[in-house]
Amino acid sequence: VIRVGSNPLADNADQAQDNRARLAASGTLAVNLMSLPGAGKTTLLCRTIADLGRRFPIAAVVGDLQTDDDVERLQSAGARTAQVDSGKGGPLTAATLKAAIDALPLAPGGLLLIENVGDLVATAGVDLGETVKVVVLSTTEGEDKPRKYPDALAVADLLLLNKSDLLPHLEFDVGRCLAAALRVNPHLQTLVVSAETGDGMAAFYAWIEARVGFARSQAVTQG
Amino acid sequence: VIRVGSNPLADNADQAQDNRARLAASGTLAVNLMSLPGAGKTTLLCRTIADLGRRFPIAAVVGDLQTDDDVERLQSAGARTAQVDSGKGGPLTAATLKAAIDALPLAPGGLLLIENVGDLVATAGVDLGETVKVVVLSTTEGEDKPRKYPDALAVADLLLLNKSDLLPHLEFDVGRCLAAALRVNPHLQTLVVSAETGDGMAAFYAWIEARVGFARSQAVTQG
Repeated sequence: VIRVGSNPLADNADQAQDNRARLAASGTLAVNLMSLPGAGKTTLLCRTIADLGRRFPIAAVVGDLQTDDDVERLQSAGARTAQVDSGKGGPLTAATLKAAIDALPLAPGGLLLIENVGDLVATAGVDLGETVKVVVLSTTEGEDKPRKYPDALAVADLLLLNKSDLLPHLEFDVGRCLAAALRVNPHLQTLVVSAETGDGMAAFYAWIEARVGFARSQAVTQG
Repeated sequence: VIRVGSNPLADNADQAQDNRARLAASGTLAVNLMSLPGAGKTTLLCRTIADLGRRFPIAAVVGDLQTDDDVERLQSAGARTAQVDSGKGGPLTAATLKAAIDALPLAPGGLLLIENVGDLVATAGVDLGETVKVVVLSTTEGEDKPRKYPDALAVADLLLLNKSDLLPHLEFDVGRCLAAALRVNPHLQTLVVSAETGDGMAAFYAWIEARVGFARSQAVTQG
């Protein structure tokens, strides 16, 4: 566990820029995964690591200190994993991501999955210097959730609606949920998946792979 | 039926620019819907007109001369409709769209739905001057279809995967289909809908409404 002292919020933007430059230089795609607790992020990460780990190097940063299980699960799935503590159980900061990158370290041309912690209000406001932001919602949450977290969806590149395998047992209107999200962010990409069964995950992998390829090509250009 | 003489392809780009300027000035969102035959475009248009017609004025342009039924169905649903003929049963051109706009005419601050005709190869290459391009695929087509029509998907803003109501009866992997589309265009937005049952259509409507709002606001700015 890497513990990082609290930094003034004013410094966060500078550190985020440093992280972004460093990730770009190494051609690493850093994906900041934000969700409410229980949306299935860890299962999503484990399956992604298991399925994509042979294509390119994958590392993971875990912000959740509640369960040491997460780190073990991710390492078992095949990712070098750093667990970080932002100090107050709040969302990750750019400084905590820097510490994690130092510890891992980065694998050039690879994927860095960041399991953010805290609610979708706090995480939305903190720039880590990540390449892309993904919001994970679950079909077990209300379909009006997107309206409650406009800030997170406004800055997100992709919405993953997880736990699609439970839809037959739920009164959940996927169309209404995605409509609420698109009203907040009309350019949001959306995918419906089940990390548990793997259903729909191929589309998420294609989304990731295209961006890993782009990050690599940019690193080559810079180099 | 408006018949328009064939124009040299070289003129199409100029006419498309004229159309685009005219649509922008009137604050009209023009949606070019492209698909293979049988993807369910007319049913999609009818439901959209019926559901959104009270929110803002909707007009439709129909390129398919095979069935006069289409015009009647769209007019019954509540849209002023122009049927156009590009001359050879091929895809619409910018000149045919101009003729349709002249005939309708445009309703400022509204929506113009263009039911394009021809296959996804021919339509992809012709700029009409529309505001956005939507590709409609169907679950009754193969899930590898996106690989066969890279040009259409590369220029599309949105992929609608229609006939989701048939999924329980088909061997069709939605994730693999969307993955193939995202490999062609990693920034493509995707939605899974059933125009027949209305399932998922709320998300398409939210996508449309946000863009109608934007088109209106731009027209006001220009005015």
